[in-house]
Amino acid sequence: MLTREQRDRLHVVLVSPRNPLNIGAAARAMANFGFSQLSVVAPYEPHWREARSAVGAETLLRNARIAKCLADAIPDCSLVLGTAALAHRKPEQPVVLLPALAPVVQAELIRGGRTALVFGPEKRGLTSDDLSLCHCLVEIPTHSRQPSMNLGQAVAVCLYELSAPRSNSPEPPAIPSSHLADPPATAHDLDLLAEIIDQTMVSANYSPSIMRNANRRHLHLLLCRLRLSHPDVRRILGLFRRVLWQLDRRGRPR
Amino acid sequence: MLTREQRDRLHVVLVSPRNPLNIGAAARAMANFGFSQLSVVAPYEPHWREARSAVGAETLLRNARIAKCLADAIPDCSLVLGTAALAHRKPEQPVVLLPALAPVVQAELIRGGRTALVFGPEKRGLTSDDLSLCHCLVEIPTHSRQPSMNLGQAVAVCLYELSAPRSNSPEPPAIPSSHLADPPATAHDLDLLAEIIDQTMVSANYSPSIMRNANRRHLHLLLCRLRLSHPDVRRILGLFRRVLWQLDRRGRPR
Repeated sequence: MLTREQRDRLHVVLVSPRNPLNIGAAARAMANFGFSQLSVVAPYEPHWREARSAVGAETLLRNARIAKCLADAIPDCSLVLGTAALAHRKPEQPVVLLPALAPVVQAELIRGGRTALVFGPEKRGLTSDDLSLCHCLVEIPTHSRQPSMNLGQAVAVCLYELSAPRSNSPEPPAIPSSHLADPPATAHDLDLLAEIIDQTMVSANYSPSIMRNANRRHLHLLLCRLRLSHPDVRRILGLFRRVLWQLDRRGRPR
Repeated sequence: MLTREQRDRLHVVLVSPRNPLNIGAAARAMANFGFSQLSVVAPYEPHWREARSAVGAETLLRNARIAKCLADAIPDCSLVLGTAALAHRKPEQPVVLLPALAPVVQAELIRGGRTALVFGPEKRGLTSDDLSLCHCLVEIPTHSRQPSMNLGQAVAVCLYELSAPRSNSPEPPAIPSSHLADPPATAHDLDLLAEIIDQTMVSANYSPSIMRNANRRHLHLLLCRLRLSHPDVRRILGLFRRVLWQLDRRGRPR
């Protein structure tokens, strides 16, 4: 069971939702399961205004944060989970089935991190760029003949799973790849790191401009997978800042 | 996991639903989780006609059975489960929390029985008369401040719980830290990587000689913790080789 304080570190992020009924339904499900932190990325303005009157979730919707892009919605999150229908694409990240998700999220919240649960637009789902910001994908085990869930129902099912008391829930798993004692890296940390590595690639002529976007996306995927701690990020940032400074100081090849 | 044949013996019964969107949402959730048997008790006729066009669940809605009263909808069911918000009433039947429901339903379906999962009208829930036909009540564990769920979401959450594959093995799920398909980095890989990063640190004057051994050790510890794959190592090696080559080529600061 998550404490109130832990639930308040789980952020539900809706990316470009179109249907105001779905926004309202998502907010209501959050209230049903005791979650309060909602962010909406690039909402369609008229629908967003309409959605703000959803039954039982008025305060939650009033306090929702609006972000221009997904990166702006999750800067302080250390575990970013993208929901995706995987029928038609090959995932680039690890995939966790929803019934196995609670211990993963609990472990992150218990060690003090913030978790984002990200839902894409109704029709298209999350873009590849948005998915590249995710540490891991969550798959709701649906039937192959009708895999695609309604947005409001998908939010309800995920939050139910994360908050349901289960008597024999397994021990929170140790995520082996970073020190449990150290605070986890946030999405903002990883952004800083990706930015300076990208600059280094350019400065060292590693990234031809035609490859730059693809390289950046792969870099983001890699950094997400590594589950770095905050001190790890400080250390690697320090090295790359030094390298970049030296590359630039030494200038073009003589 | 329920077989197809077992799922076809689970009946979803909506008693007097008012909102056609909720009827459609319930049907879509059934399709999402592989259930097919829908009965609707005393639907409001205009709304029922409107609901029959719900996305992805047309066949299911077309085949839905209409009953005049709950008793008529469940004659062949051997286990009748009523869903109820129990905040304001004292239950007369045994109550099962939803996270504990699957084994109860599975046992009934495995022994060949039919199970009905009954949902009341949006505003009032099931009447005392309807509840008296239930063997057992199902409670969705919601937050005390907003216990009442939207009908379509309640159906989705219940059917998710009944169909979710759950392993009984104590094996804790964890986010795998590198692509499972990729071969993991070997100790030799990490040595190569540590070596070139060390050289880069020296070339960029990052590592004063007094710190060099300590830095190398930290670097090794970090690389071990990251659980890199072999392709990860190739990629990072490529970047550092390029950086080192450029640093050396550009020579000492001018």
